[in-house]
Amino acid sequence: MGNPRKGLEKPSPSEFSEWFDNVIREAQVYDYGRYPVKGTGVWMPYGFSIRRRVTDLIRSILDDAGHEEVLFPMLIPEDLLVKEEEHIKGFRDEVYWVTHGGLEELDVKYALRPTSETSISFMESLWLSSYKQLPKLYYQIVSIFRYETKATRAMIRLREVTTFKEAHTAHATFEDADRQVKEAVGLYSKIFDSLGIPYTIQKRPDWDKFAGALYTIAFDTIMPDGKTLQIGTVHHLGQSFSKALDVKIQLPNEENDYVWQTSYGISDRIIASLIAIHGDKRGLKLPYSIAPIQVILVPIPGKSDEENEAVKRHVDRVMERLKQCGVRARVDWRDELTPGRKFYEWEQKGVPIRLEIGPREARENTVFMARRDTLEKRTIPLEMLCETLEQEGKSIDESLKEKAWSWMRERITRCHNLEEARESLASKRGIVEVPWCGKASCGLRMEEETEGKTLGSPIRVEEAEWARGAKCPVCGAPAVTTMRLAKSY
Amino acid sequence: MGNPRKGLEKPSPSEFSEWFDNVIREAQVYDYGRYPVKGTGVWMPYGFSIRRRVTDLIRSILDDAGHEEVLFPMLIPEDLLVKEEEHIKGFRDEVYWVTHGGLEELDVKYALRPTSETSISFMESLWLSSYKQLPKLYYQIVSIFRYETKATRAMIRLREVTTFKEAHTAHATFEDADRQVKEAVGLYSKIFDSLGIPYTIQKRPDWDKFAGALYTIAFDTIMPDGKTLQIGTVHHLGQSFSKALDVKIQLPNEENDYVWQTSYGISDRIIASLIAIHGDKRGLKLPYSIAPIQVILVPIPGKSDEENEAVKRHVDRVMERLKQCGVRARVDWRDELTPGRKFYEWEQKGVPIRLEIGPREARENTVFMARRDTLEKRTIPLEMLCETLEQEGKSIDESLKEKAWSWMRERITRCHNLEEARESLASKRGIVEVPWCGKASCGLRMEEETEGKTLGSPIRVEEAEWARGAKCPVCGAPAVTTMRLAKSY
Repeated sequence: MGNPRKGLEKPSPSEFSEWFDNVIREAQVYDYGRYPVKGTGVWMPYGFSIRRRVTDLIRSILDDAGHEEVLFPMLIPEDLLVKEEEHIKGFRDEVYWVTHGGLEELDVKYALRPTSETSISFMESLWLSSYKQLPKLYYQIVSIFRYETKATRAMIRLREVTTFKEAHTAHATFEDADRQVKEAVGLYSKIFDSLGIPYTIQKRPDWDKFAGALYTIAFDTIMPDGKTLQIGTVHHLGQSFSKALDVKIQLPNEENDYVWQTSYGISDRIIASLIAIHGDKRGLKLPYSIAPIQVILVPIPGKSDEENEAVKRHVDRVMERLKQCGVRARVDWRDELTPGRKFYEWEQKGVPIRLEIGPREARENTVFMARRDTLEKRTIPLEMLCETLEQEGKSIDESLKEKAWSWMRERITRCHNLEEARESLASKRGIVEVPWCGKASCGLRMEEETEGKTLGSPIRVEEAEWARGAKCPVCGAPAVTTMRLAKSY
Repeated sequence: MGNPRKGLEKPSPSEFSEWFDNVIREAQVYDYGRYPVKGTGVWMPYGFSIRRRVTDLIRSILDDAGHEEVLFPMLIPEDLLVKEEEHIKGFRDEVYWVTHGGLEELDVKYALRPTSETSISFMESLWLSSYKQLPKLYYQIVSIFRYETKATRAMIRLREVTTFKEAHTAHATFEDADRQVKEAVGLYSKIFDSLGIPYTIQKRPDWDKFAGALYTIAFDTIMPDGKTLQIGTVHHLGQSFSKALDVKIQLPNEENDYVWQTSYGISDRIIASLIAIHGDKRGLKLPYSIAPIQVILVPIPGKSDEENEAVKRHVDRVMERLKQCGVRARVDWRDELTPGRKFYEWEQKGVPIRLEIGPREARENTVFMARRDTLEKRTIPLEMLCETLEQEGKSIDESLKEKAWSWMRERITRCHNLEEARESLASKRGIVEVPWCGKASCGLRMEEETEGKTLGSPIRVEEAEWARGAKCPVCGAPAVTTMRLAKSY
């Protein structure tokens, strides 16, 4: 029966913020706002187990694509961080500085890494000497720090981002770095697809690219409140860091040149969006493939000791079967809670499948299954358990993904003039698309007129096709692409 | 032929320091001393893959024993860190302080965590309310920072310890915390045993316990230079942190009391000792069970294209077989290197088994196997490959472990007087044991007279049995235990 008071619908836009804060605390995912450092939170055991499965997924996809995991120091000396001019301009106001060791003042200030382009490039200047070593693909999963002056938000805008996966690659040519950007976009699509998280991909406008990059490709998703959230970025860094840090190699023609670099990052926001996008008023809804607990068994007490004994034996049999077919399952044996209370808790934690096992199931050698996403319930013979779970697991993941994509698509609106765009953003938020001539001045004007933020233009030309021939609503020139605008985090 | 210039013997005590620095850089484990922050290093891809397997091992042993992984913020506000008086006294001189965010001075100074007793206890004061929730076993694997004023050493004495596994547990009674200390000692023994790292276990004397603890149990091993290295510690914290941070629970009798706590830690030193203790003049020697690459295949070129084709096909067949039996294997196809050069590199990296595959092996459907630890070589029919590797893998691990233990045992010397002890420490280092009456003043005097550092007394009474009835060499009173002394890191 779960929690009969609450339905399976998403929180409304105005409820979202409070819903999110409650659900991550009550489902014991992330304790935010109570540890006495603003903008930081604590990954609690259940949340950590979700995080571990997400980072395992990221690792496995990057490893298979030839990336090598490394771990660099957290401190970056001031003189290293300031080497790339654009970069430090972009980060100067948000870096934390370590100035003292014990009671002594340090000779050199150290920054808590805001990102690692400078430190990784520094070591590459020692490690790389020939095009034969390239391409070289490194990544690390680490904490980064930003002294955010905007309002902080659990998992979304943090001063300590604890799950920063940053990849850094080096190449012999501009073209190869360009190819790597495309490959990274493919890998990130695969990662988000595995979690059922929908996204749009766009090239950020020049005025919003990463500090030091030639260009930036970004993944955005739409949160239940209609605001977009940047969930991944891929940067072509050109030679700006390699020149600043002197990362030189010998080319096939025996001349020396600086390497071409890319970097790409995913943060805690991947978990924030996993929770926010699939969740409903009862709490989390985790995809079966990623859930730390895929199946929760809730024993239903009988009327006699004999019945309870039979239930216990049957639960053991079911667990044995689940172990054989490699399902991550757990039994909730807690005496002090009613089955209803247990249903409520595990629904809140988003466990995809619940099996209720009482005297009847013991007698009939079955289990009674309930799906978290739809609340569909049915009885399954024990001998069909493994196949059924495999099918249901796939069906859950497909259904979550499909619903998430169709919800997001409904919130992308094409507008031919800025008035319309402004109204759409004001009333239903989401993303608006308007024809764009490509000039920065027109893009910036669109921001003003629509009170939205420019996300950039789609990297897949077919997504901008509709706008060809239309006119840029600012200058009236023929549009060459589409500009996407949104209220964004 | 590997590197015929170098043998399979350990580096001598005087060579050890240079050997260690060279081997971790040349085998591309850890780049130390070049990144421009003193006392920090970079885990390179191969080193990181070793580290990943070690942390996986630690995780699996702790998870199985009911520990839950969490992740706490890296920054600790000054007023939180200073709450436990003894604790801050112990750490005041070695804490890094963050004082600025961007260009602004912060209202409160933040410490980079030197260890997490205070922050975890703070959250426990919010999370724990009843004895029913206990025992609670948390752990995290994180970077910690100490502003070391002693000479820093790669992986051994760092300013950023990047692999700090710290467990923190809460209990309803003193006795249960005491039991947990014993359990932790058992878990740590299992972890070190799995890596073949030998150790002695002792209770540190009162003057050398963890800042804030009732008592400290430590694991020490002996490095090739004869100095001891502390590789793990387990602390009974009593109620000092729970009182300072107000971690109160309701007991079965409905009275309130502070929880009893323990904490235990393992650091990068576990990997340092894995490398140092098993290694030889050719480089690393990794146990088969932990090696990221268990088997390296080196194709031996033939005299014709046909032969090379046959070798290639045979290598593919062998890899297919290895995949089936779940062996972590890799082929070294690099054209530009001779087989001899490849042997040298993979020996240096400590890959336990090498398979050479040339025209003859292709013809005869065999592989030619060489063990890294003994250099034993023999031909194996393909159909015997999986069983043989399983046997050889076990044999390698047992042999590494046995050799390491017997080498260490030879370096533990029992002495009845301090003159003898001093000479033993001066000439052969290792550990000396002397009868001890248990008085602190006598222990401190032993340090002076022997020029050694007191490690403490064995926790297994049978290890102190020999000293019973003997006299404390300082005061002449009857000994109640043994004091262990060493030149230590």
